[in-house]
Amino acid sequence: MTTQELVDQIEKKKSFLCVGLDVDLEKIPAHLLEAEDPIFEFNKAIIDATHDLAVAYKPNIAFFETYGVKGWESLKKTIDYLNDNYPDIFTIADAKRGDIGNTATRYAKAFFEDLAFDSITVAPYMGSDSVEPFLEFEDKHAILLALTSNKGAFDFQTNEIDGEALYKKVLKTSSTYQNNDRLMYVVGATKAEYFTEIRKIIPESFLLVPGVGAQGGDLHAVCKNGMNDQVGLLINSSRGIIYAGNGTDFASKAREKALALQQDMQVILEAR
Amino acid sequence: MTTQELVDQIEKKKSFLCVGLDVDLEKIPAHLLEAEDPIFEFNKAIIDATHDLAVAYKPNIAFFETYGVKGWESLKKTIDYLNDNYPDIFTIADAKRGDIGNTATRYAKAFFEDLAFDSITVAPYMGSDSVEPFLEFEDKHAILLALTSNKGAFDFQTNEIDGEALYKKVLKTSSTYQNNDRLMYVVGATKAEYFTEIRKIIPESFLLVPGVGAQGGDLHAVCKNGMNDQVGLLINSSRGIIYAGNGTDFASKAREKALALQQDMQVILEAR
Repeated sequence: MTTQELVDQIEKKKSFLCVGLDVDLEKIPAHLLEAEDPIFEFNKAIIDATHDLAVAYKPNIAFFETYGVKGWESLKKTIDYLNDNYPDIFTIADAKRGDIGNTATRYAKAFFEDLAFDSITVAPYMGSDSVEPFLEFEDKHAILLALTSNKGAFDFQTNEIDGEALYKKVLKTSSTYQNNDRLMYVVGATKAEYFTEIRKIIPESFLLVPGVGAQGGDLHAVCKNGMNDQVGLLINSSRGIIYAGNGTDFASKAREKALALQQDMQVILEAR
Repeated sequence: MTTQELVDQIEKKKSFLCVGLDVDLEKIPAHLLEAEDPIFEFNKAIIDATHDLAVAYKPNIAFFETYGVKGWESLKKTIDYLNDNYPDIFTIADAKRGDIGNTATRYAKAFFEDLAFDSITVAPYMGSDSVEPFLEFEDKHAILLALTSNKGAFDFQTNEIDGEALYKKVLKTSSTYQNNDRLMYVVGATKAEYFTEIRKIIPESFLLVPGVGAQGGDLHAVCKNGMNDQVGLLINSSRGIIYAGNGTDFASKAREKALALQQDMQVILEAR
């Protein structure tokens, strides 16, 4: 998917919501456990109930991988279901992969070709030749970790490197990579005050923003500081939506939560 | 596996060789492509031919993941084969995972429980709460990326952060993590001169060293600067061993290359 197609979808749906699929067998409604593939059935119901409110879905790969071959099958079914039924939706493999050249190309092929995701989250530590292989695929995107919303982000990301925070160095250095127009960035919403600084370095790029809701980030503060001419934001909510209910009506409960977020986003978009 | 069991195996085999399984369908001998699972058949033959010379095997997860569900099945068969037939051998999932709390625990369960690896490579960018979940598993190890052997390592790892190179900050900070005695580190062999500095920070830890051979690192220089009382090194070779031959005798060709490395290691161990 091109960035312009993503922007068009945002304007059409009046939403920049991404729904995170962090599906845990211990948390999904009990009646689904009788299905042959409970994880896929859960995802399918959530997607069907929210597809007109969300512009992106983000399966968290760890939650599939933890179930081995069976989990990988559930992942394949989930992404195929999205691509077959809702081809306009932007798909994100939240995999946080990061390895060099040859190996990075293998990961890129796994997620861009075998699974046909539009994008994948990527870790920056190994530098250019661990990121650029993901940027060689037309209409595909690497979403690079910049500033995350967890406690450990302060271990390295905010420390000064060559006179500025490491996450800023990551933004600047990666902006020189080949095909950097296919880069997006992960920026945690718990640090809304950082968005102004970040926009000075990467005014054009889309930002994937976790941490609104469950992790305490404020949607309005993020939008005020982080939005650009093309919106430029994908706000992710995972648990707050998918585990809104735990009964047979879990999908409609999820829709309620997604709708509330979409309506907030519509107000923000219309006030531009 | 405990660190002591790894050390015992090193002393017994007079080897600290790790064989990297980066198995590419385009590179394996043509006759294997007729097998039901060519990747597993290739791995099985390489393992059988080298198990007395190597103390560790390191499947590169990208090379399995790129084949989707089928690749994940080959990975499962490979690790099961190792654990069933050579339980004394140390196994490394070269996955370079890195995500926060809950998600990291899922990755840890995928590799330590479902697949029963002894260890996994982990990326440090997200800090403590992305690494510590991997350290909660008894007799399991997280091998943290410190200084890698690729060009992109100079993008961030060697830059000064708080007055010292980022990779040194990673070594120091991670040494304060809970259960840090279960940490090992990836240190590339192309930078043998760094090993002296690294040993000042982490004298006790095992180092997984890629880059000997194909990437140009020098075994003797690495050992001189990096070895400790418990040896403390696992030297990885992937392509140099597994693609030594391309005919029906590929496994014996691989053995020849592994034997040459093991004999070099034996000389170094006996000269201590």
